[in-house]
Amino acid sequence: MVKVLVVGANGQIGKHLVTLIQDHEKMEAKAMIRKQEQASFFEELGAETALVDLEGEIDDITKAAEDVDAIVFTAGSGPKTGPDKTILIDLDGAVKTIEAAKAANVKRFIMISSYDTTRKAIQEASSSFAPYVAAKHYADEWLRGADLDYTIVHPGALTNDAGTGKIEAAATVEPSEVARENIAQVILACLENDATIGKEFQVVNGDTPVKEAIDSI
Amino acid sequence: MVKVLVVGANGQIGKHLVTLIQDHEKMEAKAMIRKQEQASFFEELGAETALVDLEGEIDDITKAAEDVDAIVFTAGSGPKTGPDKTILIDLDGAVKTIEAAKAANVKRFIMISSYDTTRKAIQEASSSFAPYVAAKHYADEWLRGADLDYTIVHPGALTNDAGTGKIEAAATVEPSEVARENIAQVILACLENDATIGKEFQVVNGDTPVKEAIDSI
Repeated sequence: MVKVLVVGANGQIGKHLVTLIQDHEKMEAKAMIRKQEQASFFEELGAETALVDLEGEIDDITKAAEDVDAIVFTAGSGPKTGPDKTILIDLDGAVKTIEAAKAANVKRFIMISSYDTTRKAIQEASSSFAPYVAAKHYADEWLRGADLDYTIVHPGALTNDAGTGKIEAAATVEPSEVARENIAQVILACLENDATIGKEFQVVNGDTPVKEAIDSI
Repeated sequence: MVKVLVVGANGQIGKHLVTLIQDHEKMEAKAMIRKQEQASFFEELGAETALVDLEGEIDDITKAAEDVDAIVFTAGSGPKTGPDKTILIDLDGAVKTIEAAKAANVKRFIMISSYDTTRKAIQEASSSFAPYVAAKHYADEWLRGADLDYTIVHPGALTNDAGTGKIEAAATVEPSEVARENIAQVILACLENDATIGKEFQVVNGDTPVKEAIDSI
């Protein structure tokens, strides 16, 4: 069984992802959550939980990561919380998770980034969105510089629409929407395909089945 | 003449520093400022000015850096502005200045950091101060990883007291106050002493003349 630590499990992508992993024959999820009252959702799916605050110590994350085979970082303060949390969760929480992966010797790491985290995107972002883009930029940079088997997923504008199971994925795609449920399927496809190691790509809703799209990255 | 680009010249340390540099026989300052109305202070000192917004493009900073021999980064939103500016100025503005230094082939770079920017300091900071410490942490990390002749100055609690010209400086010193005017003298002493390259130290007010303290780092 491949055991996957889902960091930010209580987020919407995280919940879809843990559900998919628990349905998978050869995978099991460990849901990293911040509050005990978030546990029941995952316990009902038969998933293990780990109670860890991303604003806490790296050691706490390392302990949660010690018995897993892969880590998915899908935590996010989101662009709607204050920029204080943006730097402490989206940047520093991501970096601490990367350092924990190294300390726990977990090589496989999948980062759910933002659609465009390039320097150009920071410069062109509105003043309210730029801090979020910058935080994700530096988190991605840290991961690229870490000696891990990473994949960076850059989703389009996230929606709560039902997943169609069909996407468009490439280094760059035209900006468009993507269902969070589709992103969870994309993560699963990445976990199943080591050819995605060392790669990053943008994803929007499209016409190609997820597995096929990810296999052709 | 050693020409020094002072990034954040209009700040209080910046103004002291440009004044000291203009008084120095073998140095001249180029004050990087954000607004035209800030120029007169520096013009009266006989210093050149460059009008550049740190939230703008790296290229603009590179152009300002092209004819200088050293860069001092003393810009800062400070812990009192919103954390959106903390990430865009204290972190991203610093990184852009480092990248501009590389692009303009200016090797000497002096960073005015915060008293303690270690991982431990982020974890122990209050929730309102932690985003600032994290931003300075990543800016310092970026500089350490850049192939530049850097010095990182970690000042104690900054005050507007008159400079005494006497400090205590070491890898770690007991937390205490330090006059901004003393920090400006410390920067000048670093610019005059290449033995400070590749080093970083904390500084508070003390009993040792600045030049002597810096020479013994």
